[in-house]
Amino acid sequence: MRILLTIKYDGTDLVGFQIQDNGLTVQELIEGALFKLTGESIRIHGAGRTDSGVHAIGQTAHFDTDSRIPPEKYAYALNTLLPKSVRIAKSEMVDENFHARFSARGKHYRYLILNSPHDDPFLCRTALHVYKPLDLDRMNGAARLIVGTHDFSAFKAAGVELKTHVRTIYRSEFSLMGNSVLAYDIVGSGFMYNMVRILVGTFIEIGLNIRDIDCINSAFLSRNRHELGATAPARGLMLMEVIY
Amino acid sequence: MRILLTIKYDGTDLVGFQIQDNGLTVQELIEGALFKLTGESIRIHGAGRTDSGVHAIGQTAHFDTDSRIPPEKYAYALNTLLPKSVRIAKSEMVDENFHARFSARGKHYRYLILNSPHDDPFLCRTALHVYKPLDLDRMNGAARLIVGTHDFSAFKAAGVELKTHVRTIYRSEFSLMGNSVLAYDIVGSGFMYNMVRILVGTFIEIGLNIRDIDCINSAFLSRNRHELGATAPARGLMLMEVIY
Repeated sequence: MRILLTIKYDGTDLVGFQIQDNGLTVQELIEGALFKLTGESIRIHGAGRTDSGVHAIGQTAHFDTDSRIPPEKYAYALNTLLPKSVRIAKSEMVDENFHARFSARGKHYRYLILNSPHDDPFLCRTALHVYKPLDLDRMNGAARLIVGTHDFSAFKAAGVELKTHVRTIYRSEFSLMGNSVLAYDIVGSGFMYNMVRILVGTFIEIGLNIRDIDCINSAFLSRNRHELGATAPARGLMLMEVIY
Repeated sequence: MRILLTIKYDGTDLVGFQIQDNGLTVQELIEGALFKLTGESIRIHGAGRTDSGVHAIGQTAHFDTDSRIPPEKYAYALNTLLPKSVRIAKSEMVDENFHARFSARGKHYRYLILNSPHDDPFLCRTALHVYKPLDLDRMNGAARLIVGTHDFSAFKAAGVELKTHVRTIYRSEFSLMGNSVLAYDIVGSGFMYNMVRILVGTFIEIGLNIRDIDCINSAFLSRNRHELGATAPARGLMLMEVIY
């Protein structure tokens, strides 16, 4: 039977989703809990990796099992075995042809920025603190430029080799939440390593008036990472939903 | 010069506001930072204690100093010396007759309850998780009964001796935030030790249909703590504002 998990995690104290040598990952925590639960050595297949420190409320992963545990019960049982920073929000049976990664049509990420003179104890795990005032209109002017299908070669971490760097972005916008939190929502067909964080880092520099909006179109043409801003910290990034 | 601080803290890893022997408190962190900043041994006077594990976004405290640091600069300077779990949101000069505790006319507390089958990694520090469904109408029916001036003798922790147990409550209501978070807001002239947590614990039992709404009026008359529910955990409680 194939089971699909919807997973929430606070990535602050984790080194990402996929198993690594250098620290605790979501994958090994869930696989360890599944072994305790079923006695089977189960490999889970995530919709994608998230970097060290990145959070999720809608990560997904599937696995195959011979266990007779009812599909919807995995969430309850796994949550008794996992640390509080990782919760299974839902477990359900899916078709044998369904694949958490290959069946995905897109992803929705959100990046939070606290734009205020002082940081906040309740946002310090999930939002980047920027104390200088950000120009929201300028940031949205830049964010709109990436909607559509573009070559995002300039927007990936150095050393990453992929067949294609063309991605389609369906939504890219900043909005104000409450008085001082800026939320950046991006929905796209797929994302390369560090792509959202490079975008946000660039938009922040544009919002601080230390980088020109035109750098976006210029980087599409030149494919040159150096035309863009610094990679924004993982702390503010959340995988909201994997779209099937 | 007398300075008033507005303080936010995540109380999860602290043993409360007021200095204690058994762990780190907000007061000692701020007094330690003030000593580094001014060279003076300064005693701060909080608007009130908060229990171990309780949070605040609007705690206040005043202190007197001979330092010539401009009043509004204390927030910036102290925040460079404090851990991320404690932030000074504002610092301002106040009159020599102003007292953080004795000038206060009331306080606003909020208690958050996540009412859903599974806990949430992003609420596990600040909301109590109740997985059985709560009846919001029943809880509001009970919450309304405490508005006004009453003898709250039954609603205090055992062993606390005070001159009077009469308090006035101006607001007491539950509301739904999003899909599954219940927020309880209470505004009153003053609160005794554990009073809000005993109220919330009682309302939860009423919401679970394991305690009758009438227990509130009954406890006002009998002054008997045993007519009420268990003390709710500190985790969900936040001091929102001290009202002057």
